[in-house]
Amino acid sequence: MAERRKTDTKAMTQPRYTGIPTFMRVPLAGEDWSGIDIGLIGVPYDGGVTNRAGARHGPREIRNQSSFMRTIHHVTRVNPYDLVSVADLGDVLFTKLLQHPGALDEIETVFAKIKGHGITPLTAGGDHTISLPILRALAKDRPVGMIHIDAHTDTWQMFQGSKFSHGSPFRNATEEGLLDPKRVIQIGIRGAQTTADGWDFSQKSGMRVVFMEEFAEIGVDAVIQEARRVVGDGPVYLSFDVDGLDPIYTPGTGTPEIGGITTLEAQKLLRGLRNLDYVGADVVEVAPPFDPTGNTALVAATLMYEILCLLAERIDSRR
Amino acid sequence: MAERRKTDTKAMTQPRYTGIPTFMRVPLAGEDWSGIDIGLIGVPYDGGVTNRAGARHGPREIRNQSSFMRTIHHVTRVNPYDLVSVADLGDVLFTKLLQHPGALDEIETVFAKIKGHGITPLTAGGDHTISLPILRALAKDRPVGMIHIDAHTDTWQMFQGSKFSHGSPFRNATEEGLLDPKRVIQIGIRGAQTTADGWDFSQKSGMRVVFMEEFAEIGVDAVIQEARRVVGDGPVYLSFDVDGLDPIYTPGTGTPEIGGITTLEAQKLLRGLRNLDYVGADVVEVAPPFDPTGNTALVAATLMYEILCLLAERIDSRR
Amino acid sequence: MAERRKTDTKAMTQPRYTGIPTFMRVPLAGEDWSGIDIGLIGVPYDGGVTNRAGARHGPREIRNQSSFMRTIHHVTRVNPYDLVSVADLGDVLFTKLLQHPGALDEIETVFAKIKGHGITPLTAGGDHTISLPILRALAKDRPVGMIHIDAHTDTWQMFQGSKFSHGSPFRNATEEGLLDPKRVIQIGIRGAQTTADGWDFSQKSGMRVVFMEEFAEIGVDAVIQEARRVVGDGPVYLSFDVDGLDPIYTPGTGTPEIGGITTLEAQKLLRGLRNLDYVGADVVEVAPPFDPTGNTALVAATLMYEILCLLAERIDSRR
Amino acid sequence: MAERRKTDTKAMTQPRYTGIPTFMRVPLAGEDWSGIDIGLIGVPYDGGVTNRAGARHGPREIRNQSSFMRTIHHVTRVNPYDLVSVADLGDVLFTKLLQHPGALDEIETVFAKIKGHGITPLTAGGDHTISLPILRALAKDRPVGMIHIDAHTDTWQMFQGSKFSHGSPFRNATEEGLLDPKRVIQIGIRGAQTTADGWDFSQKSGMRVVFMEEFAEIGVDAVIQEARRVVGDGPVYLSFDVDGLDPIYTPGTGTPEIGGITTLEAQKLLRGLRNLDYVGADVVEVAPPFDPTGNTALVAATLMYEILCLLAERIDSRR
Amino acid sequence: MAERRKTDTKAMTQPRYTGIPTFMRVPLAGEDWSGIDIGLIGVPYDGGVTNRAGARHGPREIRNQSSFMRTIHHVTRVNPYDLVSVADLGDVLFTKLLQHPGALDEIETVFAKIKGHGITPLTAGGDHTISLPILRALAKDRPVGMIHIDAHTDTWQMFQGSKFSHGSPFRNATEEGLLDPKRVIQIGIRGAQTTADGWDFSQKSGMRVVFMEEFAEIGVDAVIQEARRVVGDGPVYLSFDVDGLDPIYTPGTGTPEIGGITTLEAQKLLRGLRNLDYVGADVVEVAPPFDPTGNTALVAATLMYEILCLLAERIDSRR
Amino acid sequence: MAERRKTDTKAMTQPRYTGIPTFMRVPLAGEDWSGIDIGLIGVPYDGGVTNRAGARHGPREIRNQSSFMRTIHHVTRVNPYDLVSVADLGDVLFTKLLQHPGALDEIETVFAKIKGHGITPLTAGGDHTISLPILRALAKDRPVGMIHIDAHTDTWQMFQGSKFSHGSPFRNATEEGLLDPKRVIQIGIRGAQTTADGWDFSQKSGMRVVFMEEFAEIGVDAVIQEARRVVGDGPVYLSFDVDGLDPIYTPGTGTPEIGGITTLEAQKLLRGLRNLDYVGADVVEVAPPFDPTGNTALVAATLMYEILCLLAERIDSRR
Repeated sequence: MAERRKTDTKAMTQPRYTGIPTFMRVPLAGEDWSGIDIGLIGVPYDGGVTNRAGARHGPREIRNQSSFMRTIHHVTRVNPYDLVSVADLGDVLFTKLLQHPGALDEIETVFAKIKGHGITPLTAGGDHTISLPILRALAKDRPVGMIHIDAHTDTWQMFQGSKFSHGSPFRNATEEGLLDPKRVIQIGIRGAQTTADGWDFSQKSGMRVVFMEEFAEIGVDAVIQEARRVVGDGPVYLSFDVDGLDPIYTPGTGTPEIGGITTLEAQKLLRGLRNLDYVGADVVEVAPPFDPTGNTALVAATLMYEILCLLAERIDSRR
Repeated sequence: MAERRKTDTKAMTQPRYTGIPTFMRVPLAGEDWSGIDIGLIGVPYDGGVTNRAGARHGPREIRNQSSFMRTIHHVTRVNPYDLVSVADLGDVLFTKLLQHPGALDEIETVFAKIKGHGITPLTAGGDHTISLPILRALAKDRPVGMIHIDAHTDTWQMFQGSKFSHGSPFRNATEEGLLDPKRVIQIGIRGAQTTADGWDFSQKSGMRVVFMEEFAEIGVDAVIQEARRVVGDGPVYLSFDVDGLDPIYTPGTGTPEIGGITTLEAQKLLRGLRNLDYVGADVVEVAPPFDPTGNTALVAATLMYEILCLLAERIDSRR
Repeated sequence: MAERRKTDTKAMTQPRYTGIPTFMRVPLAGEDWSGIDIGLIGVPYDGGVTNRAGARHGPREIRNQSSFMRTIHHVTRVNPYDLVSVADLGDVLFTKLLQHPGALDEIETVFAKIKGHGITPLTAGGDHTISLPILRALAKDRPVGMIHIDAHTDTWQMFQGSKFSHGSPFRNATEEGLLDPKRVIQIGIRGAQTTADGWDFSQKSGMRVVFMEEFAEIGVDAVIQEARRVVGDGPVYLSFDVDGLDPIYTPGTGTPEIGGITTLEAQKLLRGLRNLDYVGADVVEVAPPFDPTGNTALVAATLMYEILCLLAERIDSRR
Repeated sequence: MAERRKTDTKAMTQPRYTGIPTFMRVPLAGEDWSGIDIGLIGVPYDGGVTNRAGARHGPREIRNQSSFMRTIHHVTRVNPYDLVSVADLGDVLFTKLLQHPGALDEIETVFAKIKGHGITPLTAGGDHTISLPILRALAKDRPVGMIHIDAHTDTWQMFQGSKFSHGSPFRNATEEGLLDPKRVIQIGIRGAQTTADGWDFSQKSGMRVVFMEEFAEIGVDAVIQEARRVVGDGPVYLSFDVDGLDPIYTPGTGTPEIGGITTLEAQKLLRGLRNLDYVGADVVEVAPPFDPTGNTALVAATLMYEILCLLAERIDSRR
Repeated sequence: MAERRKTDTKAMTQPRYTGIPTFMRVPLAGEDWSGIDIGLIGVPYDGGVTNRAGARHGPREIRNQSSFMRTIHHVTRVNPYDLVSVADLGDVLFTKLLQHPGALDEIETVFAKIKGHGITPLTAGGDHTISLPILRALAKDRPVGMIHIDAHTDTWQMFQGSKFSHGSPFRNATEEGLLDPKRVIQIGIRGAQTTADGWDFSQKSGMRVVFMEEFAEIGVDAVIQEARRVVGDGPVYLSFDVDGLDPIYTPGTGTPEIGGITTLEAQKLLRGLRNLDYVGADVVEVAPPFDPTGNTALVAATLMYEILCLLAERIDSRR
Repeated sequence: MAERRKTDTKAMTQPRYTGIPTFMRVPLAGEDWSGIDIGLIGVPYDGGVTNRAGARHGPREIRNQSSFMRTIHHVTRVNPYDLVSVADLGDVLFTKLLQHPGALDEIETVFAKIKGHGITPLTAGGDHTISLPILRALAKDRPVGMIHIDAHTDTWQMFQGSKFSHGSPFRNATEEGLLDPKRVIQIGIRGAQTTADGWDFSQKSGMRVVFMEEFAEIGVDAVIQEARRVVGDGPVYLSFDVDGLDPIYTPGTGTPEIGGITTLEAQKLLRGLRNLDYVGADVVEVAPPFDPTGNTALVAATLMYEILCLLAERIDSRR
């Protein structure tokens, strides 16, 4: 059993409006990434959105609101910082931002490096396009399962002649062999569409699609059981698009759909997903320009904290 | 069986922020209204409000947000544009806006013309006062039933010495023989009042009043059954005041009341009301100046889409 | 049986945007406080906040939004103004605002005067620090019970070296013998903390802590029963921190925590707490600078109206 | 020489966010209006607007922001409260708000009463329609001159078939013999129009129209001289429409026109108009729903303070 | 001399909040573009921004605010709609939005078509990248001069490895022979830069760069003379980036720089540029997500109206 | 002549929305402060405000907006980062925030340390109270002169019984011998006051008070000459309260006063103050909760950049 590496939490005891806002106020990693268990990282990219841009500002504002976060989980009493070493890896830096989808390669490179260091990444987007290059890095060796909370299946074929938009990451990931669709569950899906193409792809490829109406009908506990059944014991990625929530919680997003999940349901759902074999996770589609109260970023930061607890427990249990 | 007239949906495939915002991006009707099954129309009038004005701006902002809407319903898989011909009839134009309640006559004239063309109107308000002249046109020949979602019964007697305000349309409509109160159900009613006059009128005249607390107690499914029982097979009008929803969904309204219906409940409710004999419908009281995120208008547009599906299915089933 | 003293409600029949905004548009008390049953009072003080200030502006904005309130409760049909004499006592005025915690003494002095007049106070904060001097005045003679709705137990020990912050009023009140912890229930508690100190104090001292997850699990009716059981027949104070609600209802607050109570639940909860022996109540932590739509203050005003009905009924029943 | 009646300014020394917001925190007048020199009054009416409503909320929000005001003018060192007795007369109350233009009669009645008490009114609108009934009361006996700051001449003929809108008060006032057009100056006029009717009426009737371009060309000092020349020694009314200012200062207004007057220019202008024979004044067209920062109301309150100094000095000098 | 073709202005007489918002409420062009003198067109594209996106929403919101515009200019008394035929050409539609800079070709194609119809385009952006494909269409045959109002010279070389961003259109246009740099004037330039590359290119290529400080020093009249001198009698394009104005006027833009031009100065400047040989014009960089009051779009719409008058007079004078 | 120490500006070339927001994106100083010429530092404290709080959030939001800043000044072509070593020293951390004015001692301690390292501090407030402890550290050895831009003289005696508020720092500093009032100039003063006490103190003690009206009258160039004359060659502190600017530029502040300085004037003023003997500087009173567009913080960041150039040039010239 390896020894635990803890996280310095001194900054978290200061008033929340003070100091430099790293994610959760964990230490900012320097050049040397050794000894880090979980890396919090921003991907300020929204070159794949089909409607309102703004998710490029997501990482910065999530960092800002994440100063509200603290250490000990009030339900599980887990303090993730006692279990593992968490660092803010900064943002993915780009050298060819205007060359979509080429910029996706730059994201992949960074996550390959993260994987190379044995770090589990917890990412703040950015639009949902970024999950594809992340999976290209993390699932390079074998397909992974996925728990995907979203209003949209993101398995559509084309947007404006491009295969690479925030409507298609998981179709591409499936077709590239990065996802095992039989081990994918999509939760909270809703909203009219111009074609049924994406819904059909998800269902025909074997993904379990929990439309919002089924979610409301069967309740969170049943959805948790279904999610655990679908993903099983294998490696799994968790992808949380904040538009899976109702836009009253997360108005700051590009393609809101009314009639969504509540934050209380989302928290319960996440807490029901302890001890899965996570290879990484992301919270995406936070677009601060459409978020006058900052609540969207606060919600995203809190979801990241909940997921951080999941990742930390898992890593700790494996030592 | 008459042949279907479909709707041109080409504009709906463009990015949502582009183009001239007609309702749902359906074609704008010109002078000739023949061949239109459902007319989407704006009534930019708020001369009857008792508190905050702003619903005059409702049609324009609902049109703006309605570009988020698409075609195929994710639950029913109905595409209303495949079933019927839908057009944007533009706004009611006024020549005597400052002569309340005379302006109401101008509204009535337009809806009489709509009825004359055999068009089923789906209206974006405007304040709730407008439902009276609409009913005067649509229910001229015989009283109709009504499904009415709202925080207020709108059956009050007088405001500032006037019978014609947004607090009284359905009292007037009942007294004028346009509504059959035995076939009226009012859903979501709540909030303190200065007199019990309106509540009493509704209940004494035979309307079924579902106060919010009963709504929460018995649940949406039971309310749907009750609504279907009350309105039966006869002609029915659907009137949705967005203040029936909780103000977290629709802050942009004139007289918000906390503790209201959720959008998910409202969507379920509407989907439970398929195949009634609709003569028309409205969504009213959207006041954009009080709606910093635009969510109120987005909700209203989505409700209009849901209702559009109801109207389209009904028309199609009757051919 | 004493004769009822009614409240002049004439101002409440005017349009809501007119006139000088006293709380609920009740008469503003002058120098003479005799004959007042319930005093609505503002405490514009936020010198004890640990994060975002702004609750100093709470009383003014709650007064502003309280013009939306009316007279007859739609569920109970109680009109509190027919039962008792309600007046706006104005704001606590300060002479040493910058001398925290000395300013708390000035609050205590005013509430001692209120108590001396036999007036039951219903207070609009201000941050939660103010409940301590209020209890020092009202519970001077014997400890009272408390129904406390909040995201936080507010029983923490120290903040920045000070015992007197909005995180500690009820620890101090317990230690000062003002609260009987066995007769205290805390409802809606949630959110990570840096230490478990406050949670532990509450539970060890005998308070009944209903974490949010239990609240969601057992439902409002069970919580009502539990609250009535805990506080029993003795004197009880009601303290409602608006951050007990989900921040979608009350974004305008200093330390929001996602995943909270809904307003519909809060209203039901309050309506389940009729006929307890109230010595006073407060609604605190409304910070208007963070409340772009004004909904936070509208919610607070409506909660004050609900509580006013509780207090009025109780006073009336005792005559 | 009559003795001075001073104003109680005790409330103005409290922190600005505290207390009940009367205008400038002067005492609220009761039933008895004797002994008042200057009456601050709200007219919460916007039934005559042609575009965006919201000025009905003007008086309340101007009162709110006016708590920022203090006593001693930093240029003139005048303290108006030492010179005269100032009171808040409350709002004009209506009994037939929806009966435009009948509601104008209710305004006239109140101002006739004000005049009857020998009080000089300083009014917060409301839309500009209200200046007509005010002039009907104040200029009943003989026509008065006027200094009018505005983007629009407000001398247009008809809107939607009505002579009584916020585009026409001064045409009606001229035609009714309330204004002496030769003693009227209109300052800051600009913006395209659909007809030249209003501009032509002003100029043909003899009003001095200072378009914005002339204002910028000749400068404030020259405009002051011109204004003093035009109005001369006779009785004069001052009417300040906040849309005369550039919308960066006053975005919260119904019909903004870019390229307007700065506040610094407006303050200098007003300070150049000391010792005219004022019969009253108004500041109108503040529409808080369009004013996210509150700056519009703050500007209006500050203009009212500047005008109050003018009125107070004049009254004092005549004793 | 050709006969004038007038514009139907009937819609402009309706209340400004009503109807479908085309630019200025001029008729929406159908398939047939013959007989149109001036085409108002939107280019909802912001794929070239280097910082905050949002200009994709510019055309829609400028259309919305342009309903405030009317017909007769208050200084020149020109009514452009009496002189020429103006139509709204809709938005450029894209089929490859995510393929920057390929999407620029789609813009060029539309403007080539516009030019082919002999229509003078007045464009609402979109980010400043769009001026390059517009010039490629309009200046294909010979280089044109340009009057360019902006905080930035937009003659920088590269951004993130791309020649085509909103920082480079006029460097590319010069290098492609579309602009004659000797006939280009850039007005309002300011703000620190990371390299001097763009400033140097402008000055070395012969452009006249009026930095903001010179603008303030010499005044608008002198700048007008300089602009007329520089562009002379040849064909000229007018490009107005709203960040040339101070961000208090136009906060809704991607790269604001404080210390800019006032709207009154901008209006005077434009009015000094009558009767130049305009080949087209644009107003760009309006980003509504950063514009809470809508003033940015109102300013842009008013600038478009001012420019429309310039274009209409020129076309009329040439008949 | 000492060798120059340059600043690493690599981060400034990244897109402005990326990365961790230190001030200007300069390197964050660690424990070791040696080798730093200029220290950018935040003082997140607003315990001395008399009206609206919020300046505690100033440093964080100024850091955020300061990512808009770049390197080469467009007027002077100075690149401060080529001249000196600039670092972000982080925020002053507090251990007794609620013990006003004791917390001021904690500020003083940090600035004493800064001075000890030979670092020139450029501070982001925080309310104006913080200038007192800063001066206590920097002017400990001998009184300094001061250039003070503000709407208020901040030389008032008492607020709520306390000598230490944001209305009094410079009275205390004068009385404590930290300021030489003969070498102090106060610029932009305006707004009514409840007593003339502060104005009188400033003038009687020998400070040069440039009221706003004089500023507008004589112009920036004359004010620059006057400022240089007053402060002379001795050590001087520069204190910029953003409420010296008109609230259209800086609405996010605690005590706005209309009719203020423009940013263009402020920039010209600062550029006229090169090569004075600066001991430090601050920009204070940025209150983000009242700043919906972020412009206040953007202005503050730009002013800090302008001042940074002044400080850097001075330091460089002395080597």
